[in-house]
Amino acid sequence: MSQTTFGYLTEENAPLFTDLYELRMLQAYLNQDHNPTATFSLFVRDLPPNRGYMIAAGLEQAIHYIETLSFGERTLEYLAEEGFDESFLSSLSEFEFTGEVRALPEGTPVFANEPLLEVTAPIAEAQLLETALINQIGYQSLIATKASRMRDVIDRNGEGQQLIDFGSRRAHGTDAGMKAARAAYIGGFDGTSNVAAGEAFGIPISGTMAHSWVQSFEYERDSFETFVDEYGDESVLLIDTYDTVRGAEIAADVADEKGAAIRGVRLDSGDLAALSQDVDEVLPDVDQFISSGIDEYKIDDFFERDGVGAGFGPGTALVTSTDAPKVEGVYKLVATERDGEMRPTMKLSAGKVTYPGEKSVRRTESDGQYTGDVVGLRDEDLPGEEQLVTVIDDGERVIDLPDLEAIQERGREQRLKLPEKHRDIEDPEPYDVRISDELQAETEALRQELESRRPA
Amino acid sequence: MSQTTFGYLTEENAPLFTDLYELRMLQAYLNQDHNPTATFSLFVRDLPPNRGYMIAAGLEQAIHYIETLSFGERTLEYLAEEGFDESFLSSLSEFEFTGEVRALPEGTPVFANEPLLEVTAPIAEAQLLETALINQIGYQSLIATKASRMRDVIDRNGEGQQLIDFGSRRAHGTDAGMKAARAAYIGGFDGTSNVAAGEAFGIPISGTMAHSWVQSFEYERDSFETFVDEYGDESVLLIDTYDTVRGAEIAADVADEKGAAIRGVRLDSGDLAALSQDVDEVLPDVDQFISSGIDEYKIDDFFERDGVGAGFGPGTALVTSTDAPKVEGVYKLVATERDGEMRPTMKLSAGKVTYPGEKSVRRTESDGQYTGDVVGLRDEDLPGEEQLVTVIDDGERVIDLPDLEAIQERGREQRLKLPEKHRDIEDPEPYDVRISDELQAETEALRQELESRRPA
Repeated sequence: MSQTTFGYLTEENAPLFTDLYELRMLQAYLNQDHNPTATFSLFVRDLPPNRGYMIAAGLEQAIHYIETLSFGERTLEYLAEEGFDESFLSSLSEFEFTGEVRALPEGTPVFANEPLLEVTAPIAEAQLLETALINQIGYQSLIATKASRMRDVIDRNGEGQQLIDFGSRRAHGTDAGMKAARAAYIGGFDGTSNVAAGEAFGIPISGTMAHSWVQSFEYERDSFETFVDEYGDESVLLIDTYDTVRGAEIAADVADEKGAAIRGVRLDSGDLAALSQDVDEVLPDVDQFISSGIDEYKIDDFFERDGVGAGFGPGTALVTSTDAPKVEGVYKLVATERDGEMRPTMKLSAGKVTYPGEKSVRRTESDGQYTGDVVGLRDEDLPGEEQLVTVIDDGERVIDLPDLEAIQERGREQRLKLPEKHRDIEDPEPYDVRISDELQAETEALRQELESRRPA
Repeated sequence: MSQTTFGYLTEENAPLFTDLYELRMLQAYLNQDHNPTATFSLFVRDLPPNRGYMIAAGLEQAIHYIETLSFGERTLEYLAEEGFDESFLSSLSEFEFTGEVRALPEGTPVFANEPLLEVTAPIAEAQLLETALINQIGYQSLIATKASRMRDVIDRNGEGQQLIDFGSRRAHGTDAGMKAARAAYIGGFDGTSNVAAGEAFGIPISGTMAHSWVQSFEYERDSFETFVDEYGDESVLLIDTYDTVRGAEIAADVADEKGAAIRGVRLDSGDLAALSQDVDEVLPDVDQFISSGIDEYKIDDFFERDGVGAGFGPGTALVTSTDAPKVEGVYKLVATERDGEMRPTMKLSAGKVTYPGEKSVRRTESDGQYTGDVVGLRDEDLPGEEQLVTVIDDGERVIDLPDLEAIQERGREQRLKLPEKHRDIEDPEPYDVRISDELQAETEALRQELESRRPA
């Protein structure tokens, strides 16, 4: 066990971040000489509640994982202890991904039953990726979506207010803290308070002071003066430690006295819309940054009630996507080789039926607005623009990775092409995703074939 | 930017996993020569919905973070680019924690307003820890609590059924996947499907097969035969790919034919309680493992409806604590040195008032059952057993870290000492946590003093 600053996952043992059953199946696929080419499709069966769309994110990390996955000594030793056999471990030590991956570029709106990603490879290879791919793409897509909803409310009702991720402390662990900052940026945020995410992803970082700064002085005024002595015009003062409006008055005095044009104040409690109006009377030329329980619903309400703010700092609600904290990404076998041909496959499990076959996702638009999607078979002749892009072929990455700015811009453009009725934050009208006639027919034929095998 | 398997957080940049404002305050504390001794208290203001208690977890990682936190070249370079000044960065390069930490041992039941941890140190040191401590302790406590609720339902209504964490794929990132496995074990789980967590923490790992295994064969029967060829008596067969009861019949045939006493079957869809009874008719001597949407409510319902199962595999609901995905841990300044003495401090922010002063948490019991807690001042004379333990003193760890088995056992024992009425999963009766008279008086006096400073 090698402990790192925040845990135990290092380059050495990261390949073990998978469910045991993947490795159990892998051993059986190889030892039993049953390793046909297979296609897996990663998708969600339903959009999370209140969501009219999701924003795809996490592909860069998914690609990196696939490109670099390999098993070193430490992982093999552990697996030997756990009873895996030598010949399998010897194969595993030579593992590398040799197949094809098609995916939705990050920033693309996506709907239920549309593949975010499809992997075609010998089944042992494709199978192994399941746990990590769902983990990485599911969470980032969840958060990019949450962020996009907040940016969308501002685009519709606000004045371009800043959105800064304040969530690191409440994220589910450190990886979530990092990925939330990245995904929020994709969804339209301007920055993060998380310094490590700033360093790692080149996202602008932002931060002011905490109540502890104010409390550590006998008088609030002293705390403001000392901060302005250090940061001058860059100062953003937190004014709600004792009384928000009084805090604003003291901030105004201090700025005056120090001859500093302080950059802003932060409000972090109480009736934020009402207080922001009061503070605006005291400090009409100073930006107000609004935090505490911020999400798309609160931002909407803030505008509705004529709150005055230059920026918002969503935290917990952003990084845990509190109103919809799970996205049940699945990675399902949809086709497998038999007698030299790819054959569609599906399961019939109650409530969990899947559409068989390698897919195509086509999107049509008219007058710059999306009009609907059709999900069909990969080789089918369908209208609209293909959304799935080949990102890995013969095990090699075949695209350049876009930078975060470009992904954010793609997300913005494509979100705005979604008719507004699908972007409502509480009761969005479902976007039209049609299953193609051929895919419907294929599904029905396969279902009948599979059901016919059961004794009456 | 150095990319790792799942992201970007390495030993080199992990110290930057903090909010920018912590570092901004740090620079100002040091440059402005304002670095009094301070005490911060980490607690939750409210238990999450439906929770009558929480289980403290994550302390081992918190201690490790505090013990090892230091800033290397890469972090200092980035901070210089971001405008921090040279003299501050020079101090930061020598950062080490020199203070005291008191905390609730992992596995301890904890309630609103009770410190999970208190840090006393020069304010610059204590301040810096905030983001990471809340992140690590908040999430693990959330999940240990969720797990403990499932184990408690089994203890009350079941027959010692196994609980295995199946959540890695749906956790919010990889750190959450790892920590959920650890925290679930603390809460009373028996194992995890996450191989990396098995390797890192020594938790038993568990896994069977996915639907893709079954679908990759033309006939379900072939898939079962091949798996039994590989794993013999160890085989656990997933029987719901096409039709659960039919799957059970095929499993029975295959076991018979191969002369293997298969270990179990897994049910993953449909009306699990009803199906498990049907499967029990077909395979009376085979263990059934139940997965798909499992949480404490589903387990309770499963028992209510006489389901037959030897184990459960909760996934998403466990690792995202779906019914209560956030725990708003806060880290508040409660005392600060002034004129050579520690003085209590508090904020008055609307809805976010804190209790001032270093704390004591005392727990009383009678006939082996807890009867209530009192939260008071550290130096107060109070009844009951002190729950906060000094874990770091003068910057050095002063306790031995218990192993996971011991923590799990502590969690079990102490949970069972909580009267059952506080453990109800839907409407628990609040446990009695009294604020001591002295702490009440201190709070009131300080509030009046602070309010008297506002002009009428």
